[in-house]
Amino acid sequence: MIPLAQYLADKRALVDAALDAHLPAATTRPAVIHEAMRYAVLGGGKRIRPIIAIAAAEACGANAEPLLQHVAALELIHTYSLVHDDLPALDNDDLRRGRKTTHVVFGEAMAILTGDALLTEAFGWLATPIEGVDPLRQLRAIREVVFGVDSTGMIGGQVADIIAERSQEKELDHNALLDELEFIHANKTGRLLTASVVLGGLLAGATETQLLALREYGRATGLAFQIVDDLLDIEETAEALGKTAGKDIAQGKLTYPALVGIEAARAKAAELLEIAVRNADKMPGPVNYLAQIARYVCERRS
Amino acid sequence: MIPLAQYLADKRALVDAALDAHLPAATTRPAVIHEAMRYAVLGGGKRIRPIIAIAAAEACGANAEPLLQHVAALELIHTYSLVHDDLPALDNDDLRRGRKTTHVVFGEAMAILTGDALLTEAFGWLATPIEGVDPLRQLRAIREVVFGVDSTGMIGGQVADIIAERSQEKELDHNALLDELEFIHANKTGRLLTASVVLGGLLAGATETQLLALREYGRATGLAFQIVDDLLDIEETAEALGKTAGKDIAQGKLTYPALVGIEAARAKAAELLEIAVRNADKMPGPVNYLAQIARYVCERRS
Repeated sequence: MIPLAQYLADKRALVDAALDAHLPAATTRPAVIHEAMRYAVLGGGKRIRPIIAIAAAEACGANAEPLLQHVAALELIHTYSLVHDDLPALDNDDLRRGRKTTHVVFGEAMAILTGDALLTEAFGWLATPIEGVDPLRQLRAIREVVFGVDSTGMIGGQVADIIAERSQEKELDHNALLDELEFIHANKTGRLLTASVVLGGLLAGATETQLLALREYGRATGLAFQIVDDLLDIEETAEALGKTAGKDIAQGKLTYPALVGIEAARAKAAELLEIAVRNADKMPGPVNYLAQIARYVCERRS
Repeated sequence: MIPLAQYLADKRALVDAALDAHLPAATTRPAVIHEAMRYAVLGGGKRIRPIIAIAAAEACGANAEPLLQHVAALELIHTYSLVHDDLPALDNDDLRRGRKTTHVVFGEAMAILTGDALLTEAFGWLATPIEGVDPLRQLRAIREVVFGVDSTGMIGGQVADIIAERSQEKELDHNALLDELEFIHANKTGRLLTASVVLGGLLAGATETQLLALREYGRATGLAFQIVDDLLDIEETAEALGKTAGKDIAQGKLTYPALVGIEAARAKAAELLEIAVRNADKMPGPVNYLAQIARYVCERRS
């Protein structure tokens, strides 16, 4: 097997090419929305959701090339969520991946519609038939993605996060805060990550047992990712991470280490990583980068 | 056949029941987004898109009862578009169907997320397998709905409308204005209406010839609806329509009668209605309300 860094770079190039090929041309009428969609999507990003879906499909023994448009749809959905989260009414962020956010460049109205258009487009890509894949499986894959990002999933996590920031957290006891934080963690990014892994498995013809392992892998990896994110914010210096380091604490934001302590948070992340690896190793394919990707996600230092 | 008014009332009750049954309970965590989704969707509305889909399915000879969740998804999509269009960054409307708009009640952030959640939910409903319906047909039906509301369809129409309102229209010649208006008309409401009709046909097992007739019916009915809307604005007195009468003219808004004259606009609407009726009459089902619905849409007086 090639080194992980090369694997990630190769797959990222494939995903980028699929995004570019399948997004409507910037000249499509009306041009401005198509320029905005391409601006938002093609401005960089690790493409971790499509890549983890590809890795899941390969871990099931499938060739992921015929699935590229479908896994790229996950990036459309992730991007739509960023475009909307960055809006003034939500996080009010002007910068994303080192570039001006969509609403700064195209205006607020167009950013709202751009997010809407990316979400819509994603389902068109997911509903495109794939030769050799049972269409009932494809319908199930769509429902899986919906479950990942609906009002009980990714959107639900974002809603809970907004409520938590606005409410007087001191009124809740420790257990209630932990429960709230775990809901946010599990949903805000965890559910789409899990859906990505399961999508790859579904389209690759995974058995129900394999799908359960993939789901558990996705859940553990997603939660570990969040805890590591919280830890990074505390541990890293302002130099290494840029201006945002310590931002969570400054904002009095609910984080895992703040609630249980740094050591317990580290132990929890390690435990989750172990669950992820154990489930990754259950997959039958000869090409299986899932365990390495989980480690990468948990050991990143930037 | 029962009278049209009874037919519309009966189907509307079925659609309302399906919406209520399939939307997550208001207590689902996090509650506020589910309250907002139900507030936005269950606050009235003619349910014309689901009803026209039901009428199309019945005109193909099918029983529409097993399709209720799927046609109700059209109302989720219509509602999401209203929730987002009403936002301050877009039309900035405080009232809708006589009630406060979603962002007025729940705040702007929650309204953005509520629209997102409704759009997402719609695709989950559409991707639910229906016994006796070919799943490949269901995938095609999803793509048909996407085509209706994507960046080249409903969203594209909304974008073009925003651009037209902001730009100095006087700089365009008559033909360019007419071209722009026809693009807005065809897309802003026409494409979702057409997708609704075709969705009904697809799920009812319509032949390709029947689908073509349904598509033409939807296109003609949608355009006629828009022209009648423009005419109503001019013709009706302020008493009959409420405060908004004459609003289009006051805003210098691009309308069909303003561009071609009232008589030519009336003639165009009549011509489109004739096309709609001719295509409605091609359908084989013994229960066929399509022609009556097209007439109803074009002859409404409020």
